[in-house]
Amino acid sequence: KRSRVFLFCGSAAFLIVCSCLCVSAEVSTPAGVTLLPPVQPENGPQSYPNAKKSNLPVFTINYSRIQIPFEITLWMLLASFAKVGFHVYHKITIWVPESCLLISIGLIVGGIMYSVHEEPPAVLSNSVFFLYILPPMVLESGYFMPTRPFFENIGTVFWFAVVGTLWNSIGIGISLFGICQIEAFGVQDINLQENLLFASIISAVDPVAVLTVFEDVSVNEQLYIVVFGECLFNDAVTVVLYNMFSFVAEMPVVEPVDVFLGMARFLVVGLGGMGFGILFGFVASFTTRFTSKVREIEPLFIFMYSYLAYLVAELFAISSIMAIVCCALTMKYYVEENVSQRSCTTIRHVVKMLSSISETVIFFFLGVVTITTEHEWNWGYLLFTLLFAFIWRSLGVLVLIPIINPFRTIPLNLKDQFGLAYGGLRGAISFALAFTLPESIVRKHLFVTATIAVILFTVFLQGISIRPLIELINVRRTNRKEDLINVEIHRRMMEHTMTGIEDICGQWSHFYWKDKFMKFNNRFLRRILIRDSRPESGIVALYKKLELQNAMEILDSVSGDISSAPAIVSLQYETWIKLPLN
Amino acid sequence: KRSRVFLFCGSAAFLIVCSCLCVSAEVSTPAGVTLLPPVQPENGPQSYPNAKKSNLPVFTINYSRIQIPFEITLWMLLASFAKVGFHVYHKITIWVPESCLLISIGLIVGGIMYSVHEEPPAVLSNSVFFLYILPPMVLESGYFMPTRPFFENIGTVFWFAVVGTLWNSIGIGISLFGICQIEAFGVQDINLQENLLFASIISAVDPVAVLTVFEDVSVNEQLYIVVFGECLFNDAVTVVLYNMFSFVAEMPVVEPVDVFLGMARFLVVGLGGMGFGILFGFVASFTTRFTSKVREIEPLFIFMYSYLAYLVAELFAISSIMAIVCCALTMKYYVEENVSQRSCTTIRHVVKMLSSISETVIFFFLGVVTITTEHEWNWGYLLFTLLFAFIWRSLGVLVLIPIINPFRTIPLNLKDQFGLAYGGLRGAISFALAFTLPESIVRKHLFVTATIAVILFTVFLQGISIRPLIELINVRRTNRKEDLINVEIHRRMMEHTMTGIEDICGQWSHFYWKDKFMKFNNRFLRRILIRDSRPESGIVALYKKLELQNAMEILDSVSGDISSAPAIVSLQYETWIKLPLN
Repeated sequence: KRSRVFLFCGSAAFLIVCSCLCVSAEVSTPAGVTLLPPVQPENGPQSYPNAKKSNLPVFTINYSRIQIPFEITLWMLLASFAKVGFHVYHKITIWVPESCLLISIGLIVGGIMYSVHEEPPAVLSNSVFFLYILPPMVLESGYFMPTRPFFENIGTVFWFAVVGTLWNSIGIGISLFGICQIEAFGVQDINLQENLLFASIISAVDPVAVLTVFEDVSVNEQLYIVVFGECLFNDAVTVVLYNMFSFVAEMPVVEPVDVFLGMARFLVVGLGGMGFGILFGFVASFTTRFTSKVREIEPLFIFMYSYLAYLVAELFAISSIMAIVCCALTMKYYVEENVSQRSCTTIRHVVKMLSSISETVIFFFLGVVTITTEHEWNWGYLLFTLLFAFIWRSLGVLVLIPIINPFRTIPLNLKDQFGLAYGGLRGAISFALAFTLPESIVRKHLFVTATIAVILFTVFLQGISIRPLIELINVRRTNRKEDLINVEIHRRMMEHTMTGIEDICGQWSHFYWKDKFMKFNNRFLRRILIRDSRPESGIVALYKKLELQNAMEILDSVSGDISSAPAIVSLQYETWIKLPLN
Repeated sequence: KRSRVFLFCGSAAFLIVCSCLCVSAEVSTPAGVTLLPPVQPENGPQSYPNAKKSNLPVFTINYSRIQIPFEITLWMLLASFAKVGFHVYHKITIWVPESCLLISIGLIVGGIMYSVHEEPPAVLSNSVFFLYILPPMVLESGYFMPTRPFFENIGTVFWFAVVGTLWNSIGIGISLFGICQIEAFGVQDINLQENLLFASIISAVDPVAVLTVFEDVSVNEQLYIVVFGECLFNDAVTVVLYNMFSFVAEMPVVEPVDVFLGMARFLVVGLGGMGFGILFGFVASFTTRFTSKVREIEPLFIFMYSYLAYLVAELFAISSIMAIVCCALTMKYYVEENVSQRSCTTIRHVVKMLSSISETVIFFFLGVVTITTEHEWNWGYLLFTLLFAFIWRSLGVLVLIPIINPFRTIPLNLKDQFGLAYGGLRGAISFALAFTLPESIVRKHLFVTATIAVILFTVFLQGISIRPLIELINVRRTNRKEDLINVEIHRRMMEHTMTGIEDICGQWSHFYWKDKFMKFNNRFLRRILIRDSRPESGIVALYKKLELQNAMEILDSVSGDISSAPAIVSLQYETWIKLPLN
């Protein structure tokens, strides 16, 4: 029965591909399918082509008018179909990451398109990627980042994101420059700046595949959050490095002052992004104070503000990724207390949905473009790129972890380090950056080819093998249980105790700062940003949260079948009896 | 305290306007702000302007790159702010419809833009309205249409939508043509075709304002659904008429064969749209059978399929409004059984959200454009347009209702007829159609001015006075109670009984057809389209639905304050005890 279902979906997807290709092949303009439209003549709604005959037409077709939204929708539908297809046949997705499957389907579609000489849509040019595809993905990561573990590991995360990425970029860049000096490879014309630029491209690590595996085998929280945070913030570092190197690559002479300017710019970009993000986050929270009468557009504010934060950061060429992540982190708690439960569900679901479809589309297009783009093949350069990417990643982990470990409460052990080093898959960001390389770089095609090679190599080889390896070496697992009110009470008590002890010792760690922040939060921020500003007992809030979570889960499960879940009341009743708080 | 809050929002909105204007005034291209971008040079992400100096820039600005999404977001934010503002000061919205307020704010913003010689964004040209703003509004109407009352009144709805709109268009058109013959007005150059075209534009009735009032004073279900349905489907008729007349207006001679072709086209357009809609609705339902593993993108399928239905209908120049409404009607029940509860909430909320923001934006722009567009003022033509629009609407109701009344179970009485006639506000569709008039029509500016006049007149005068009038003449109210399982059981029993009696009498009304459809539905459609296809007792389904509704409402209310809603369990417990079904 399963396979029949699979066939169904496959054929549906195939039909869509075909129809999509046919339509665009027959009707599209010679320039191929472009997402940004050429300036079209002003047409009325459903205007008729200027037909010669004067009789009223009973049936007309006007494709160019709906081309853009139609093709965007079709491509999205196709990618979604692929995704549904894999999950219908569930066994695949356990062993092969979704990204691999999407790339494979993309390769097939790319092959079809190549054989009918069809150009793929220009998703990656014209900053479509950075303005429309990337923001939802980063917003999701920021919005669903587990806040407590993140702030407990913030040092390690930034150490890795900033220093690790610099280490990788500079290490790979210089090593590749060394390789370029060997005449046998025939790439002597690539100078140091271009090598560094290329290295910065392939230093961006992509979380999706690895994080899914980590979540499935439930590795320990520390490792998880370090990979998560590194992936998120190293994108920001990479983009900055990329911009800097791409500017440097076109400069005739690099003066010493430029190095200092570069470092200044680094700070401006990072801190500026953070500042804008926090500002917009507060404004968003403040706005939702007043939306209790217009529940239906509440979620829109969240999307609009975070997108604005992103765009404004792009405008000033500061780190837009930082901006949107900080915006999401800042507003999340205040907004979720202000908006209705329904809006909250919608916000979460839509953020997940948009990010999921963006991810799907980008991996899918990675496959398509791999086939349809022009390649420049150079065995030596490609192989050494793969080698250096792997070596510098591993070296980086081995060197950087022992430096940060003394400062950590729970040090990362060797197995964690392996997970960290092996989890360095490359993905969408590298791909997009390579494609948006300026044309002035002579070896652009080589860089694109090498980037795709690194992505495919890491995603397929490491992506598929990481699950067995993690299970084999038996990385420290977490016994992640459900939230219990008892655990929470004890944790909070411990935190207060720690704060007190630290205060007496005069040694201030994050407990102290958390306590200070919570006081500031309760005294000022909550009063300004939250509608119902009376201070609420933390335990009641947690109870409320758990109860809501519980109810939502029950609702979810009931939806399918009522007879298997008759206990909706009894379950809640039990909770009630166990926790007679009111 | 209220007024302080109002000030806050007002100032926020004002700041946004100003910043928006400043930015676009200073940085935008001379051609003004266009939503569809000119073909831009290929830029890398955050590419620097080709500066002369060779040092690394620490701070750069690149506005043109983010202009389009940035300005769209700002305008949406501005409109949302206006909406939030009204509702913060709640008393206004009871007496003045939101559309009036939005138009007023739009007028103010338009005035500011006019004074700084700023062009408004081209939302209404280039089919932006028909491809991006209209679909969400229609989808919402279709998705939330109360199905049972609609099908019970389907005859009256279509009678009004089709014949009523034809009546209005032709009546107003011919009367205005008569006026044009009077030399004193100086509009002899407008021929019959152009008058008919203009009349078709101002025959489209807009539901929003009226329906809000009807809902608030809870008029009887019959009147409500007739206005609702008429508004929805007469848009479709209007667009067809508009297309036909705009084609006819450019024809030198109208032959008799064209009249028949027009009627043929009418059928093709209407039935074709319906067919496409139902087809896409079934495909959407079928697709959601397989999405249980990819819950996060479930809602996307709904939006993509309904949008595709709309676009495909636009492609073939058939009624896209019909298509999307039928798609929504068809898929709604199957989809909501297939998807998770959370997805269902998201779908409903997002549909409402998108439609709400589209509506807000369009009324807001109506205000802006009223000021910034070129007008041609002709007192005679304007006044007679207003007069005829009112007269023919009233005449239509007075003539058409007595014809349909004998076929109705509950006839519409005189007060209902008043509500129907007076509820004929004009809105967004008329506005958009007038703006997309082909330039070949000499008196385009006059038509635009007249359309805006009719819209403003009806929205302000009728929109504000309809609530007091409805309350004054005491239109039949409904005692709309909450759904009760008891009521439902009795209604279903009555329906079965009626079907049996009708079968014996040999007189088949909608009960018979409903019964037939339900049998077909249970035997075939549900098995194909729904994952859990075992036939479910209708009563259990209803119970499930009510329970879910209940739980959702409780969740919603708890979100604000737990101490005021401690009864979450006891409430559910009561339901449980009252209805011991399992």
